[in-house]
Amino acid sequence: MNKLRPDHEHTDHNMMKIEVNLDDTPGEWLGYVMDKLFDAGANDVYYTPIYMKKNRPAILLQLLCSDINFQHIKKILLAETTTLGIRYYPLTVFRMERRTRFVKTKWGMVTVKEGWQDYEVVKSSPEYEECRRIAEHYQVPLKDVYQEVWKNLK
Amino acid sequence: MNKLRPDHEHTDHNMMKIEVNLDDTPGEWLGYVMDKLFDAGANDVYYTPIYMKKNRPAILLQLLCSDINFQHIKKILLAETTTLGIRYYPLTVFRMERRTRFVKTKWGMVTVKEGWQDYEVVKSSPEYEECRRIAEHYQVPLKDVYQEVWKNLK
Amino acid sequence: MNKLRPDHEHTDHNMMKIEVNLDDTPGEWLGYVMDKLFDAGANDVYYTPIYMKKNRPAILLQLLCSDINFQHIKKILLAETTTLGIRYYPLTVFRMERRTRFVKTKWGMVTVKEGWQDYEVVKSSPEYEECRRIAEHYQVPLKDVYQEVWKNLK
Amino acid sequence: MNKLRPDHEHTDHNMMKIEVNLDDTPGEWLGYVMDKLFDAGANDVYYTPIYMKKNRPAILLQLLCSDINFQHIKKILLAETTTLGIRYYPLTVFRMERRTRFVKTKWGMVTVKEGWQDYEVVKSSPEYEECRRIAEHYQVPLKDVYQEVWKNLK
Amino acid sequence: MNKLRPDHEHTDHNMMKIEVNLDDTPGEWLGYVMDKLFDAGANDVYYTPIYMKKNRPAILLQLLCSDINFQHIKKILLAETTTLGIRYYPLTVFRMERRTRFVKTKWGMVTVKEGWQDYEVVKSSPEYEECRRIAEHYQVPLKDVYQEVWKNLK
Amino acid sequence: MNKLRPDHEHTDHNMMKIEVNLDDTPGEWLGYVMDKLFDAGANDVYYTPIYMKKNRPAILLQLLCSDINFQHIKKILLAETTTLGIRYYPLTVFRMERRTRFVKTKWGMVTVKEGWQDYEVVKSSPEYEECRRIAEHYQVPLKDVYQEVWKNLK
Repeated sequence: MNKLRPDHEHTDHNMMKIEVNLDDTPGEWLGYVMDKLFDAGANDVYYTPIYMKKNRPAILLQLLCSDINFQHIKKILLAETTTLGIRYYPLTVFRMERRTRFVKTKWGMVTVKEGWQDYEVVKSSPEYEECRRIAEHYQVPLKDVYQEVWKNLK
Repeated sequence: MNKLRPDHEHTDHNMMKIEVNLDDTPGEWLGYVMDKLFDAGANDVYYTPIYMKKNRPAILLQLLCSDINFQHIKKILLAETTTLGIRYYPLTVFRMERRTRFVKTKWGMVTVKEGWQDYEVVKSSPEYEECRRIAEHYQVPLKDVYQEVWKNLK
Repeated sequence: MNKLRPDHEHTDHNMMKIEVNLDDTPGEWLGYVMDKLFDAGANDVYYTPIYMKKNRPAILLQLLCSDINFQHIKKILLAETTTLGIRYYPLTVFRMERRTRFVKTKWGMVTVKEGWQDYEVVKSSPEYEECRRIAEHYQVPLKDVYQEVWKNLK
Repeated sequence: MNKLRPDHEHTDHNMMKIEVNLDDTPGEWLGYVMDKLFDAGANDVYYTPIYMKKNRPAILLQLLCSDINFQHIKKILLAETTTLGIRYYPLTVFRMERRTRFVKTKWGMVTVKEGWQDYEVVKSSPEYEECRRIAEHYQVPLKDVYQEVWKNLK
Repeated sequence: MNKLRPDHEHTDHNMMKIEVNLDDTPGEWLGYVMDKLFDAGANDVYYTPIYMKKNRPAILLQLLCSDINFQHIKKILLAETTTLGIRYYPLTVFRMERRTRFVKTKWGMVTVKEGWQDYEVVKSSPEYEECRRIAEHYQVPLKDVYQEVWKNLK
Repeated sequence: MNKLRPDHEHTDHNMMKIEVNLDDTPGEWLGYVMDKLFDAGANDVYYTPIYMKKNRPAILLQLLCSDINFQHIKKILLAETTTLGIRYYPLTVFRMERRTRFVKTKWGMVTVKEGWQDYEVVKSSPEYEECRRIAEHYQVPLKDVYQEVWKNLK
């Protein structure tokens, strides 16, 4: 077992939430634009179903980003969706101390992201992409890979 | 008080549910198509948010109709949405006995739809369109109109 | 009829909204954590369905609390969910003047919460827990209890 | 470790799905009616957000039950909600072989529901109610109780 | 082709988001209140499905408005819904430069809203109400009207 | 312009809908299982947000498949999710006649899927994957690629 890359607990005061209501952008494009927004530095992007006027089912796009990425992200939203405007407000983000360690399984090592609080591990998340690759390579259910990691956590 | 238009309790075995997944029809069109489908004889039309492959937020259109309206409704769905297919299955609908009566309020009579079960009124719904017209005409909250009807129900 | 416990109209400037995106917390735990958060002083807690990257259906937890409860609530969120961070921002809450009174029904008195605006009752809500207890004890539909209260409101 | 109460794999052909659209039943009542429906023998009850005509956000109640409970459940739906009708159709349910066993944790034994397929355990779910009681009694996060069970599964 | 009514790009710092959780307002009333809120000057109103305590499916009403309309809108929310309070916070809105032009189709001219960025048209939206009227008058699918406009855009 | 690969209009009576309620499968796994189900021959897979007992936000997985793929798909659902059972019922699928043709754009040819009804093209959908590749390769918005295809459709 090995501790790597400590990310210290901190509170980030330079974050922004951007919101856009989309009632005439096809869902096909929204799958695409999500990737573009992550590439542009968005910390998170997610869709919520909303109901708008004139009986229109629509999508609320919400996005978190650091203020230094704001201009670039705004440009993508205006280019890739059908919106004519965006709205935004500042918010604060608290992040736990994060560490990573390796856990041995019968299929090899798996990275586990840990959250630390008051000198204690309070959560442990196996890395999804590594678990997925193991599941595909060894033809086992993804669920079994996670469970194997959980059993060997300590 | 006056009883009108009895609709006897019955079970309808000739109903169909139609479903269509829509990931590339803009929400603007979906508000429009709903009205068209009701005009074509749909008993109910409603939208559910769904999540499809490739990260696409989308809409599931569900529709109830009698089998005699099926062909006409199918044609509208194929013409007005972007789907290349529709799926459907039969279902059974039980409907309570329905009656209507009039309830006096300070703004005039309001029709109330009643549901009867075993010779008893088990529910009473003020007619939305009439309540709405009163609310708009007398500049009172819609909520107040409903509450006034409820108070005068018996 | 009896007036009790006046809660005057006021605007509260010390409220916060906390948000957490959850894509790896099972729904079972989320039912549990909601109760814990109310116990810790949250004014409101609610879940919204969201769609995240990599085709993940997920849940957005939103929470309103006074800033004096913030530290305690943060601790619960970090302990009980799988998130590694939380985000938050201040907001303002306006609350109507609230009063309670008792309404007589055939099953006994029921408390009704009232909202007052400009010296007038603008809304009246029967207390859910009392109505529920009556419905269960007298074996009548909950709907009938509410309707009985509404009829006897004045 | 101890095996109890084997429930053999089977396919049940006498199940029904009931559906009701609710656009004028307050959410308060829907929390109540869910419990009543489970008490009446429903195998599952769940709500889906839908969007109906005239810009109405509404709820689709879906319910699974055996046909022998159908009449009783229908009666509750008609009494406790505002609907004037219900729709339904038969469906088939396949259920895995289920067993339960006990897993030792530092807070005592916890029941685990197991799903068996081809003489193999393919899933193991700690009993929610037992984990919840431990979490409340020992003042530990529910998450920690589950994780402790998972670690001790074999 | 003709350019009309330029709306210059600008950032509006006097906007507010209002939010209300509704677990006891029937969906019927919510369709009505949306129209009232737009009439009162709301820039946008939309509903999101939420899940509240005690198993209650509910609706989150969100509303964007300029601060000069705030008092009027607050009054409508308190009068027309069942809420006893509202919450709100300021946000910023960026709006692209908007122009409108006319596009010729076989059924007559259709107005197209354009969004301009850096001296370039980056989006073009046919006016929904005009397309709807053409679709109804000429008995053609709404989709065909939009597609005809798109083809003739340049 | 070139016509290819005619898929004649037909009605398929051997389709099944499978449904599974998931309240303890993390969203991370659900993104993964969707791909597995498409690989196994599912015609469609989609997620709907649902609300279950004990205040649990959950996911309804729905899946369409031909009856010949049923056994294989059932096995994946039981292996990869946490469910102990699945439910299903037959349904009918109507599919329009489909053709594909190529449309010239400034970035090269793009395949367009067409739906035909009564010897007429009633819909035309540019192939998403091709449009996406063009957008990425030429660094243009995906929206512009679609619009270019629409303009050159005939």
